Amino acid sequence: MTEHTHKQYDAELEEVRSRFLQMGGLVESQITGAIDGLANGDLASLERVIARDAEVNRFEIELDEACSHILARRQPTAGDLRMMITVIKMITDMERAGDEAEKIARMAKLIHEAGRMNMPAVELWHMANTVVTMLRKALDAFARLDAQAAAQVVRQDKGVDAEWQGVIRQLITYMIEDPRKISRSIELLFIAKALERIGDHAKNMCELVVYMVKGRDVRHTGVDNVEREAAAN
Amino acid sequence: MTEHTHKQYDAELEEVRSRFLQMGGLVESQITGAIDGLANGDLASLERVIARDAEVNRFEIELDEACSHILARRQPTAGDLRMMITVIKMITDMERAGDEAEKIARMAKLIHEAGRMNMPAVELWHMANTVVTMLRKALDAFARLDAQAAAQVVRQDKGVDAEWQGVIRQLITYMIEDPRKISRSIELLFIAKALERIGDHAKNMCELVVYMVKGRDVRHTGVDNVEREAAAN
Repeated sequence: MTEHTHKQYDAELEEVRSRFLQMGGLVESQITGAIDGLANGDLASLERVIARDAEVNRFEIELDEACSHILARRQPTAGDLRMMITVIKMITDMERAGDEAEKIARMAKLIHEAGRMNMPAVELWHMANTVVTMLRKALDAFARLDAQAAAQVVRQDKGVDAEWQGVIRQLITYMIEDPRKISRSIELLFIAKALERIGDHAKNMCELVVYMVKGRDVRHTGVDNVEREAAAN
Repeated sequence: MTEHTHKQYDAELEEVRSRFLQMGGLVESQITGAIDGLANGDLASLERVIARDAEVNRFEIELDEACSHILARRQPTAGDLRMMITVIKMITDMERAGDEAEKIARMAKLIHEAGRMNMPAVELWHMANTVVTMLRKALDAFARLDAQAAAQVVRQDKGVDAEWQGVIRQLITYMIEDPRKISRSIELLFIAKALERIGDHAKNMCELVVYMVKGRDVRHTGVDNVEREAAAN
């Protein structure tokens, strides 16, 4: 490669990296927008979240195209290739996390339009905070090539799964106590499920970050092993 | 490339293709195993489904590794590169469809162990049949490079989404009529949700098949457009 080509190649990689971070920032604001809209019943802001899912989708299409161009024209190897494969897979998780935000917004709209708010004291808000934090940490770990920060998110997902089980139990109790609230409880159950899925996507992305940084595929190996590999030299 | 290298390269591509189809066959049998176990309460067969999810995971790890080797050493371009990118993305959907089968098996085990069977007449069996058919068609479309067959699956997913909405309504009615059956209904709701997700994964894979065959990214463009692009020369 000439120095010029080399610089251009680096610029292309950097462009993919920074566009992916932008996509992540958008998805993060979609999730907080949906959750805030659920809390305060601001229908206009819920509509905005629903409309902006198309932007998330555009990021997915554009980023995948940019990656396949780089693969075709630059034929990256070693760390650069791992970065490409990682981003190609992370894009999918990011887009689906965005889909979950849209689902939450639709459900929140339904709840408020039907005047069915009066939230039971489920742990939904805490769960929402946790998964937004996880997503932000996943993006930071990707940006800073920090495998150990990524491993922390994988660990955190265990907590989200436990909270999700707690929410199910709470909602079932709530429904049994007052069958008139079954419909609303099912809607809240779907919102909690969407949050749990966002946690999964953040975890998936973090396992990919460990692979990108360390070159070891840690998926399906258990969180203790993920932490070990992330800390290894 | 020498003729020898060329043959070896073709063999590597063929190996990835056929391993992916094997993975798909396994996931298909996982789903039918979970659903049959739900229907007939055969706990041993449900345990087998749960245990075999590890095999699905191994396929994911091995196939991703094979793809990244090919990308690094053969630096494929054009149709071969599209095939690699498609498989890398399809593997993720296939593994997650496998996860859903495992979730169904776990839920079915819970239902039968608690003696909570006596299924309400929800459309679960029909939905299960449909998504298994969709998955099989997705694999066939991939194997035969058949974009139009892939587009049919994208269309079929609309029907699954409608059935899923129907199941939710049925289960809510059921819970309101007999609050003692709330727990069981929630379990069935999760099973239906898992089936709906499997339908989504089959749809996602089929959109990727259209991209692989036609070179056009049809995601997020609507089913009419997917059909048009799949039929175009």
